[in-house]
Amino acid sequence: MRYTLGCSLSYNILAETLFIFNLEVAHLKSLAILNESLTLSPDLRRRTYVTPDFQNRYLGVNVPVGPFSLEYNAEVELTVLRADPASIHETPVAELPLDILPFLLPSRFVSSDRLTPFAQAEFGHLPKGHQRVNAICNWIHDRLTYQPGSSDEQTTADESLLRRAGVCRDFAHLGTAFCRALGIPARFVSCYAHGLVPSDFHAVFEAYLDGRWWLFDATRQANLDGLVRIGVGRDAAEIAFSTPYGNMQPTGMQIRINRADGQDGPATRTVDAISTEEPAPHAGAA
Amino acid sequence: MRYTLGCSLSYNILAETLFIFNLEVAHLKSLAILNESLTLSPDLRRRTYVTPDFQNRYLGVNVPVGPFSLEYNAEVELTVLRADPASIHETPVAELPLDILPFLLPSRFVSSDRLTPFAQAEFGHLPKGHQRVNAICNWIHDRLTYQPGSSDEQTTADESLLRRAGVCRDFAHLGTAFCRALGIPARFVSCYAHGLVPSDFHAVFEAYLDGRWWLFDATRQANLDGLVRIGVGRDAAEIAFSTPYGNMQPTGMQIRINRADGQDGPATRTVDAISTEEPAPHAGAA
Amino acid sequence: MRYTLGCSLSYNILAETLFIFNLEVAHLKSLAILNESLTLSPDLRRRTYVTPDFQNRYLGVNVPVGPFSLEYNAEVELTVLRADPASIHETPVAELPLDILPFLLPSRFVSSDRLTPFAQAEFGHLPKGHQRVNAICNWIHDRLTYQPGSSDEQTTADESLLRRAGVCRDFAHLGTAFCRALGIPARFVSCYAHGLVPSDFHAVFEAYLDGRWWLFDATRQANLDGLVRIGVGRDAAEIAFSTPYGNMQPTGMQIRINRADGQDGPATRTVDAISTEEPAPHAGAA
Amino acid sequence: MRYTLGCSLSYNILAETLFIFNLEVAHLKSLAILNESLTLSPDLRRRTYVTPDFQNRYLGVNVPVGPFSLEYNAEVELTVLRADPASIHETPVAELPLDILPFLLPSRFVSSDRLTPFAQAEFGHLPKGHQRVNAICNWIHDRLTYQPGSSDEQTTADESLLRRAGVCRDFAHLGTAFCRALGIPARFVSCYAHGLVPSDFHAVFEAYLDGRWWLFDATRQANLDGLVRIGVGRDAAEIAFSTPYGNMQPTGMQIRINRADGQDGPATRTVDAISTEEPAPHAGAA
Repeated sequence: MRYTLGCSLSYNILAETLFIFNLEVAHLKSLAILNESLTLSPDLRRRTYVTPDFQNRYLGVNVPVGPFSLEYNAEVELTVLRADPASIHETPVAELPLDILPFLLPSRFVSSDRLTPFAQAEFGHLPKGHQRVNAICNWIHDRLTYQPGSSDEQTTADESLLRRAGVCRDFAHLGTAFCRALGIPARFVSCYAHGLVPSDFHAVFEAYLDGRWWLFDATRQANLDGLVRIGVGRDAAEIAFSTPYGNMQPTGMQIRINRADGQDGPATRTVDAISTEEPAPHAGAA
Repeated sequence: MRYTLGCSLSYNILAETLFIFNLEVAHLKSLAILNESLTLSPDLRRRTYVTPDFQNRYLGVNVPVGPFSLEYNAEVELTVLRADPASIHETPVAELPLDILPFLLPSRFVSSDRLTPFAQAEFGHLPKGHQRVNAICNWIHDRLTYQPGSSDEQTTADESLLRRAGVCRDFAHLGTAFCRALGIPARFVSCYAHGLVPSDFHAVFEAYLDGRWWLFDATRQANLDGLVRIGVGRDAAEIAFSTPYGNMQPTGMQIRINRADGQDGPATRTVDAISTEEPAPHAGAA
Repeated sequence: MRYTLGCSLSYNILAETLFIFNLEVAHLKSLAILNESLTLSPDLRRRTYVTPDFQNRYLGVNVPVGPFSLEYNAEVELTVLRADPASIHETPVAELPLDILPFLLPSRFVSSDRLTPFAQAEFGHLPKGHQRVNAICNWIHDRLTYQPGSSDEQTTADESLLRRAGVCRDFAHLGTAFCRALGIPARFVSCYAHGLVPSDFHAVFEAYLDGRWWLFDATRQANLDGLVRIGVGRDAAEIAFSTPYGNMQPTGMQIRINRADGQDGPATRTVDAISTEEPAPHAGAA
Repeated sequence: MRYTLGCSLSYNILAETLFIFNLEVAHLKSLAILNESLTLSPDLRRRTYVTPDFQNRYLGVNVPVGPFSLEYNAEVELTVLRADPASIHETPVAELPLDILPFLLPSRFVSSDRLTPFAQAEFGHLPKGHQRVNAICNWIHDRLTYQPGSSDEQTTADESLLRRAGVCRDFAHLGTAFCRALGIPARFVSCYAHGLVPSDFHAVFEAYLDGRWWLFDATRQANLDGLVRIGVGRDAAEIAFSTPYGNMQPTGMQIRINRADGQDGPATRTVDAISTEEPAPHAGAA
């Protein structure tokens, strides 16, 4: 599937600010970048950094006082692997590659250690595999209200569970937390999401099953095969689309993604099993 | 300084258990490993993994039901860089290398986002540099009681602040949190600690100042130049000396570190500035 | 139903200690005290206080260093009002007497404000009345594990929900919290509980429905018609059986309750609607 | 000192709403009510309730859909007892009247149990008496920023301590919590406050010292002898000026208090010891 996508961000800088942006699409075999451009206005010096663990692409820019804007555009060809959910099993913890095990650890917003008794009680008895993670998504979708303003940047997964509300970030944190609490490696994913209304950066999560990462969206708001990855991380702290150090005000933000063939339609919210990352030979593999 | 060190751990395995150990000394230029041995009994298959971000050495072992023990011994030559604390300045956030910036983010037990107002109010006005981090250590040392049993494996930095008590792990989490809250990159360090009484694995932290990582120990219980690094991480979750998945009971644990020349004495708790890791050329460096 | 009951408590006093005890049976029309004795050893001066809001009986004793013991015995005739649960309706908040409204407020361990979204989502749609509170008890009973040691004296209702475990105190706090969150006045009750194994002080709760207080026990461990009230309060903070100010060690504790006719049997855990307190003319009544 | 005071509140009622108001001045010997009027528009039926524990005056009104307003006016003569702070000692817990002891217990927003180690460490060594509570107020005043919007209706004392910010409610909760944690009975007080800019309902606290309740205002924003009490309670939950059950929007709020002689001036923030409630013969007194 071919997509054109991008974003336009503008700020009023009140005191010199270092921005760390993470909004360019990821470098993945399944995601061919046909063309890509990123414009800064004013055209300031750029620093770039790709993390050794996740290959996230970070862009650092020191911005002086005054107006500042960024425009990013890309055309990509996304190839997804589909599979029969029933064929995707859980990997016993004892057989997990060592480089996957850190995704069982709790992180700032994914308080899986606090949620272990809850997760075990609700999902411990369910048939294992892709269907169990899908059941977790259904549970979250059925019980939490998608409600902008119901959370803030310090909200953790256990708080979202009590509030029974959140936004995509919170739904993804809770899904990630339940998985980790059950011994299923899971990580947070930021992306452009075709079909999402209104258009915005989106957050979903991936669970590691049967030797590869599979995508899940507990909000059920976008097409799984329309998720174009930006970054992956332990939780939202690591892959905010914009992390500013300084003093500034956002003045505009527009996110877009369209099918390159113009055949845009509503999200069909298929729940097929989807994976976009090829399994790699693992260090410390079983 | 040359040290002989090691540990002996034993367990009674009640159900097949995957252990992830992180107890071998780190691979660092400043830390020459003269000899090293690790014995498992029974002698089970070992998997090893070195993380791409921190170069921590993990050992994975699947252990069947029954008794299990591990013995590790090493002789190392540790070279520390000493410097005049007054000469070590803070690096403004805008000038930090991009690969150092993640150490400003909050993590599971380092709730620096929740502690930002507190840190700013207590330490925001202090002269910047090594002396400010040292002042943070003094503050923690003066206000928190070192008290085994006062915390558990879910205790966060903000909770330790309220409890005014903790163990080395908690002192290190709180120091790390205050630093991050002030814009000083900081990370958690596990180590063998010469002079620590009673001997045990120890936890301290490092702050990034003037282009390199400097060691700090808010417990003031060991010699800064007697800290032999095992691992570094965002917080204790990542570098537990033993992370078991299964069901087992610890039955014995002994940790040791001695000067190879036999000149062991009490910890002198010097507060000189100490660094053990050479600065590397940074990706995305300023 | 006639019961003989009592308790024997002993302590080793390490420094002069003020004890506030709340372990004598309540003064209620439905609870005739046939005889009653309370012995202190040594026989220290007693101060007594009955609260104007709940009529709880507090006993204050200043105890010097050394051994100290208390023995309480009573014989009581308990008259319970039974009713058909289906006939007991909820009173709309707008029609509640003003002196009942404070039982909708959150208290230290009954964090009903934090649990409102959860309670509304789980129980908001259920048919109102005694059956709804009974459904809350069933929900708690089915989902939480009764597990001594799983909580401590600072555990709140929202924490118990996450932990999916607790003791009678926690089950009662959570039931109370869910009720208040739904607009049903509720309060915490301490009692002697016939049929409880092993014998101990017990905690249950009362909900205000159709003009009077009805008893509920989410642990399902004792007979509702074998609950002999000691105190009622907003939560456990107010009616601990013993609140010591000083320094002491408990050295023994024995609680007992038997049917005076000797016809003791196992708890039958009937879920009939039971009330032990007559409705009073209310100040500010509707 | 004679004051004229009052408030005007208006609401738009969206669905039938029960209001519980607590905004009439308290019935105290030290507070002579020279005249008083309360007008409702429309003129709905009123229910009133005075609590047996605190003598707070509650007004209940069921309000139908549409506009609703309340106007309250009173003229009062306030007599305060002044004393030399140095002459006011703490009462040892063992000597406290039993009816005062409940003010040592934690409540929903006064998490004194969580703050005990912090309070002991900061204030445990200070000279006891009125001056210690005054030192607590100074500590809070110096460290917390008075910042509207920094807290919400679920904020607890320990959270305010971490945030280093709050409004009068939070300052009073924290002062109350520190006192209780130190064994000093304390309670939350709502009032009209002469000299407060901008005029608003105010919250302060009282500590029980040397046999009576003494007023403290950690915000230092009003004159201690210009505080006209409305209610007292364990914390803000009990004495909100308006507790609505239903659905409504506030549309206006004006609070006023002036000296009847017109000699209004700025708050002088005297820190003399002030008490407005006469000691009563205590039940269970020492």
